[in-house]
Amino acid sequence: MLKIIFVFTFLPIWIFGQTSTYERDKKIIQSFFHEALTNQTAYEDLRYLCKKIGHRLSGSPGAAKAVQWTAKRLKEYGADEVWLQEVMVPNWKRGNKEVAKIINGKNLNICALGNSVATPFEGITAEVIEVHRLTQLDSIGKDKIQGKIVFFNRPMDPTFINTFQAYGGCVDQRSSGASEASKYGALGVIVRSMTLSLDNYPHTGSVNYQPNIKPIPAAAISTLDANYLSEQLKKNPKLQIFWKQECKMMPDTVSYNVIAEIKGTEFPNEIILVGGHLDSWDKGEGAHDDGAGCVQAMEVIYLFKKLGIKPKRTIRCVLFMNEENGMRGALKYEEEASKNNEKHIACIESDRGGFTPKGFQIEGGYSKEEIVRKWYKLLEPYDLYKIVEGYGGLDISPFRKYSDVLLIGLEPDSQRYFDYHHADTDVFESVHPRELELGAASLATLVYLLSEYGTTMK
Amino acid sequence: MLKIIFVFTFLPIWIFGQTSTYERDKKIIQSFFHEALTNQTAYEDLRYLCKKIGHRLSGSPGAAKAVQWTAKRLKEYGADEVWLQEVMVPNWKRGNKEVAKIINGKNLNICALGNSVATPFEGITAEVIEVHRLTQLDSIGKDKIQGKIVFFNRPMDPTFINTFQAYGGCVDQRSSGASEASKYGALGVIVRSMTLSLDNYPHTGSVNYQPNIKPIPAAAISTLDANYLSEQLKKNPKLQIFWKQECKMMPDTVSYNVIAEIKGTEFPNEIILVGGHLDSWDKGEGAHDDGAGCVQAMEVIYLFKKLGIKPKRTIRCVLFMNEENGMRGALKYEEEASKNNEKHIACIESDRGGFTPKGFQIEGGYSKEEIVRKWYKLLEPYDLYKIVEGYGGLDISPFRKYSDVLLIGLEPDSQRYFDYHHADTDVFESVHPRELELGAASLATLVYLLSEYGTTMK
Repeated sequence: MLKIIFVFTFLPIWIFGQTSTYERDKKIIQSFFHEALTNQTAYEDLRYLCKKIGHRLSGSPGAAKAVQWTAKRLKEYGADEVWLQEVMVPNWKRGNKEVAKIINGKNLNICALGNSVATPFEGITAEVIEVHRLTQLDSIGKDKIQGKIVFFNRPMDPTFINTFQAYGGCVDQRSSGASEASKYGALGVIVRSMTLSLDNYPHTGSVNYQPNIKPIPAAAISTLDANYLSEQLKKNPKLQIFWKQECKMMPDTVSYNVIAEIKGTEFPNEIILVGGHLDSWDKGEGAHDDGAGCVQAMEVIYLFKKLGIKPKRTIRCVLFMNEENGMRGALKYEEEASKNNEKHIACIESDRGGFTPKGFQIEGGYSKEEIVRKWYKLLEPYDLYKIVEGYGGLDISPFRKYSDVLLIGLEPDSQRYFDYHHADTDVFESVHPRELELGAASLATLVYLLSEYGTTMK
Repeated sequence: MLKIIFVFTFLPIWIFGQTSTYERDKKIIQSFFHEALTNQTAYEDLRYLCKKIGHRLSGSPGAAKAVQWTAKRLKEYGADEVWLQEVMVPNWKRGNKEVAKIINGKNLNICALGNSVATPFEGITAEVIEVHRLTQLDSIGKDKIQGKIVFFNRPMDPTFINTFQAYGGCVDQRSSGASEASKYGALGVIVRSMTLSLDNYPHTGSVNYQPNIKPIPAAAISTLDANYLSEQLKKNPKLQIFWKQECKMMPDTVSYNVIAEIKGTEFPNEIILVGGHLDSWDKGEGAHDDGAGCVQAMEVIYLFKKLGIKPKRTIRCVLFMNEENGMRGALKYEEEASKNNEKHIACIESDRGGFTPKGFQIEGGYSKEEIVRKWYKLLEPYDLYKIVEGYGGLDISPFRKYSDVLLIGLEPDSQRYFDYHHADTDVFESVHPRELELGAASLATLVYLLSEYGTTMK
């Protein structure tokens, strides 16, 4: 017998007994979706960004081209103002293709982790010790680790429904593994790729070196080769591998956040930010990560202008530089906003892939979720059912210190994201036009509602 | 100013102040998802069904093999009983590959529509008249249609969020176009493929001939070639095409529904059906349509047995034969159920592709939706947010006449479905393992809750 019954109620409260604004909002939202699904502007922009420009690592020619091209495009869309915000970014170069090989055995699919140092010029030839948790290093001890390559091989947990949780439960190996292993005298670390897919692609991503710990080289290995290496190690724990990578951190270089604005008609000083990050790793084409978020945010500007919708509050599309390996663009943006006493009322980020949107994750607990949830009836026809407490995104996180800024992350379906994330597979063809466009129209919808009604927080 | 506020409330009512069944249910549901996502049994079954057996048109060797193999598999999963239910099915054969060509022009990608008659042996060479709506035929008139090929070219409307609605708004051209055009003396019809994707694949599907109307041949044309043909017709309305297809309806042949059962411990006479259809078109591998639904329903049996869960009510997995071009299996199943006075309390169908599930569509209005909605808190962690009035599915539709049977359709994300539907692209590789498995576990969840608590309808 069912002991608990959950009663699920929607209570429409007709405050003024008028439906006119509701009907108008409904029509405007419908027009966003119709236009996005019909003309697929974000998708065509993504095609250009991926196919004509390609990947866009901070400091690379691709990143520089992307800055110029997106700014040009935003002007074409009729933004009231478009400008570049200068920011110094790290300038890491991968160099020639990395090589790894089991001595007397097969080649391994690896790639250097972003920000990693190189191996010595002659490469590393060493034994390998497989480890699943950072905390294991201490129990294994310096004697057994010194002079070896530490192979972090804990897979992502497939039982999480949201794959970002599985990623979160694993990524310590990639971000912190090198410094932790260095403390025990390891020569370098090779880390199982952060993906639930079993394939031959290594997935890069940043390694963070702790200050005052000797930086050692770090690489990602494909999941199939991680499994293979693990099997071989069981047969022969003395197995050695040869590994060489030439990557290098160069001096910081100049780059830009790209910013476009539509001025609000009634409250021009209240800013609603919508954005993604323009940089990507130097693998694939940065299609889902985060070309998708950028072209969606650009389409918000396009949709308002194309459809002639004048927002009451100011809408600002921000394409952040350097999310992947430094977050310099995000820090710079907030620093300037603070310096100029700008009032951001909401920041919305799209950086979880161009997949069918499920809804929004909102930082700060139920009272903040409610601000969006009151629009439930307007969002539901677009299957934006999921309005939950969660995580906004890295590039808007510097605004977390202001309790009156609403931080929102678009939540798309996450099942396929890590198949592509930071790998050669993250190309234009992996993005579905309708899935991407639904995200763009969802962002425009939320931006519109926030621009009309603001946030009701104290 | 916002004139309407929707208050969104979840009211947990603690009838007996006990949470033990809730906690137990939560754990069982979690175990379904963990097992499905970890071992991917449905996905591995789909690999076999697609790669070792292939497509499974009613009456084909593939369909016969699939009947035997799925029955064997369901026995291996430990179903209490597995049986085949004989049913006579149509036996349509495509014959040699169809040919269509613009005279003095390029070849066109076409394929015969299912159940279509052949062209004359020497093919058809005729002018083409483009039409967008069936109702246009009358205003165009017999004089202009007679002796020509009618080319139905109304595209699916991209502005629907659910692509099945776009399909529903277009499919009259495919199902009824031939008989309607025949009334005006057309030689045959060529119909734009029912897909939102622009590509070179013709998508088949059934044509329904009206009694006492001369059946004329019908084919699907790829969307790219539909656009091309339309352009050429604008330049030269007198353009002719050559078209030949050899398809043929053979006498009915014997086939089977595959049925597997786990007997209920408390109410063995109350049946909860979960199923999909085992037949497919003879294009691609019938992966999304509806290999996915079959292997998901099979996994329900697997999950209960593997996890040792004894349902209170009887669970019946039904793999229907001949959904695509006759529905004979579904009709037969209900006929036998009625003859044997079987009491079905709920029928759940999965036949909308193996994509990430959003929730369930329930036939019969709010009071029936409520039966499922009361489990909202148990479904929400799996993003099964969407519990709405809608459509169960074709194979369970014969049960619509019993008002006390709950008809439920699993609703996956629909964005990519028609990229693959009835085309060469509907292959194993188009199915994502996690998306498919989430559907399987969602079905198991609903089956479990219904088996524990029944339906509270009068």
